[in-house]
Amino acid sequence: MLPGVGVFGTGHTVRVLVPLLREQGFPVQALWGRSQEEAESVAQELNIPFSTNQSDDVLLHPDVHLVCIHTPPPHTRQIAVKALGKMHTTLKGGHEVSADAMQMVAAARYYPQLLSIMGNALRFLPAFVLMKKLLDEGYCGKLQVCEARVYGGSLLSQSYGWAWEELMGGGGLHTIGWCIIDLLSHLIGSRALRVHGMLRTFVGRAGGGIRSVTADDYACFQMLMSGGVVCSVTLNFNLPGSAHHEVMAVGSAGRLVARGTELWGQRHCDQREELLLSDKAGAGPAVRGLVAMVTQLRLAFEAQEDRRSWARPPVAMAASFEDGLYVHAVVEAVKRANRSGEWESVEVMTQEADSNHNQLTAAH
Amino acid sequence: MLPGVGVFGTGHTVRVLVPLLREQGFPVQALWGRSQEEAESVAQELNIPFSTNQSDDVLLHPDVHLVCIHTPPPHTRQIAVKALGKMHTTLKGGHEVSADAMQMVAAARYYPQLLSIMGNALRFLPAFVLMKKLLDEGYCGKLQVCEARVYGGSLLSQSYGWAWEELMGGGGLHTIGWCIIDLLSHLIGSRALRVHGMLRTFVGRAGGGIRSVTADDYACFQMLMSGGVVCSVTLNFNLPGSAHHEVMAVGSAGRLVARGTELWGQRHCDQREELLLSDKAGAGPAVRGLVAMVTQLRLAFEAQEDRRSWARPPVAMAASFEDGLYVHAVVEAVKRANRSGEWESVEVMTQEADSNHNQLTAAH
Repeated sequence: MLPGVGVFGTGHTVRVLVPLLREQGFPVQALWGRSQEEAESVAQELNIPFSTNQSDDVLLHPDVHLVCIHTPPPHTRQIAVKALGKMHTTLKGGHEVSADAMQMVAAARYYPQLLSIMGNALRFLPAFVLMKKLLDEGYCGKLQVCEARVYGGSLLSQSYGWAWEELMGGGGLHTIGWCIIDLLSHLIGSRALRVHGMLRTFVGRAGGGIRSVTADDYACFQMLMSGGVVCSVTLNFNLPGSAHHEVMAVGSAGRLVARGTELWGQRHCDQREELLLSDKAGAGPAVRGLVAMVTQLRLAFEAQEDRRSWARPPVAMAASFEDGLYVHAVVEAVKRANRSGEWESVEVMTQEADSNHNQLTAAH
Repeated sequence: MLPGVGVFGTGHTVRVLVPLLREQGFPVQALWGRSQEEAESVAQELNIPFSTNQSDDVLLHPDVHLVCIHTPPPHTRQIAVKALGKMHTTLKGGHEVSADAMQMVAAARYYPQLLSIMGNALRFLPAFVLMKKLLDEGYCGKLQVCEARVYGGSLLSQSYGWAWEELMGGGGLHTIGWCIIDLLSHLIGSRALRVHGMLRTFVGRAGGGIRSVTADDYACFQMLMSGGVVCSVTLNFNLPGSAHHEVMAVGSAGRLVARGTELWGQRHCDQREELLLSDKAGAGPAVRGLVAMVTQLRLAFEAQEDRRSWARPPVAMAASFEDGLYVHAVVEAVKRANRSGEWESVEVMTQEADSNHNQLTAAH
């Protein structure tokens, strides 16, 4: 039997995700929204029995064994920081631990998947799963450069909301850039040490010209990864009617290119590019990734007798909360670089300067 | 009757260019090479009657009325600086003018095409001619971003030569980047004020691993243009078997994309991208551009009775020596930015701080 799911978020992704979860047999039990009204409204629309604006009410709900977090970036970070903070405190046996925190950590230990399924379903896209496998097997030789380009129409919601405001986590860098940074770091198997970047808001007014927009609609940034790989990312959301999503890895022996949901490759010895994975599902990489993620989740749980445990391999590639904190640090460094005009170091936030936290430093 | 041509350079482009010139009816009269031996050898191979390593011998040759310069970057610059320096001195009526310089300037005044045909034939590629026309007509609305990407195999010559050395003008930035910077500035109609960039030499040894290579094989740089347009350029010559050449312009109302020798466009109101110019000549943009340039040259001269004069419009779009100095300044600024890690100003070299030279400053 599959575990009950609690979902954080009320946006577009959640409206796509909930039907996908149900299709695979997951009962969706609880929904968290920023306000009680918003949570209730979306829960009713999606036919979810419980709704709340208190995160613990979802995390500790008796029918919730798996949590999916798809919230605007600042909330994701708050939830991640909160959960990690509580965890570390407890693992150290400190005395600031509240009853709530203890329950939270108990849940986190008992249901480690609580920590696993956040943010980025792109990692699950079959093209990227195969790309990672081939990179690890040396298809490209020694990796040199990764490039990602995402073009599309405006990310602004119809009516004013968080997506319009940089400070509320809106903009291409915060939303799509987040997923690309996570994906590239995952594919390469290393983390960004220094970044440089440039952000622009070309469409500075919306809502009939009444409100100003601060969220970026163009981002171009570079990441220097530990190990020497160079990454270059371009995001442009001033191209309505286009949906271009390309990730390329170039190495000493060949290259791999994911275009949309397909994977192409060419080694230096090959005469031409070959199609390595065709995936004509019709959906874009983000939705296709969600479908793949939910399917993998089902397989992970089905491989187990106990619905509260899961088989590690299929879901092990999901982004963890720690990955989330790292990506957040990269995003912040790109924003600093845009302001300073200089290369900025990636500084991953740690709650305490503690040897337990070594895994949170940039070069792992 | 078409004018006699003098050619500077002994490289691959010259071997392509000379037959193209002859096909269109231009008699090729003289060839300049860095050494007398090299000049003689290539002149014999291409059946050119006169060869020399003295630039004035070509510039002042009685049968030479048109000069085409395709030399390694440092030489191009020296020739440009020399010619411009002499011109300005003379135009001011200064007293340092040698007999040679006077002849040179006389030639330059009488045959203004001497100053016109340098470096970049990409401007003549039909796809870019149409792209420029449509941009000027407002197809894209207010221009926001230009992106250029050129991927290909190694630029290194088989045996050791200038192409291996950054200081001798080798590398993707100096050669291909030069043409792209000139092209983008021409298309946008403005100049780069500040640049940021990153250069890498991933293949650091060649010639069986014996010699070290200092020329870049990867370049990623951004240009902030006067008027606010942002340019991003990526060059990667670690992709053998690939010949990707893409230049995209994105504006408030649509975009134009030249892929190889074809031009595609999509306005925001269009359902899909449309093919605006199909050019299946089989050749790449560089060679196709040379063919177009030579054809335009012929038309320009045929429109005139006197073989020493030419109709301005068809050739007016060629890069001038002043354009050459500007592009040189951008290349140098990218190299500085690569070293400093900061945005660097484009500082166009002027011979003298003179009001006559205002046209040489970056923001024109």
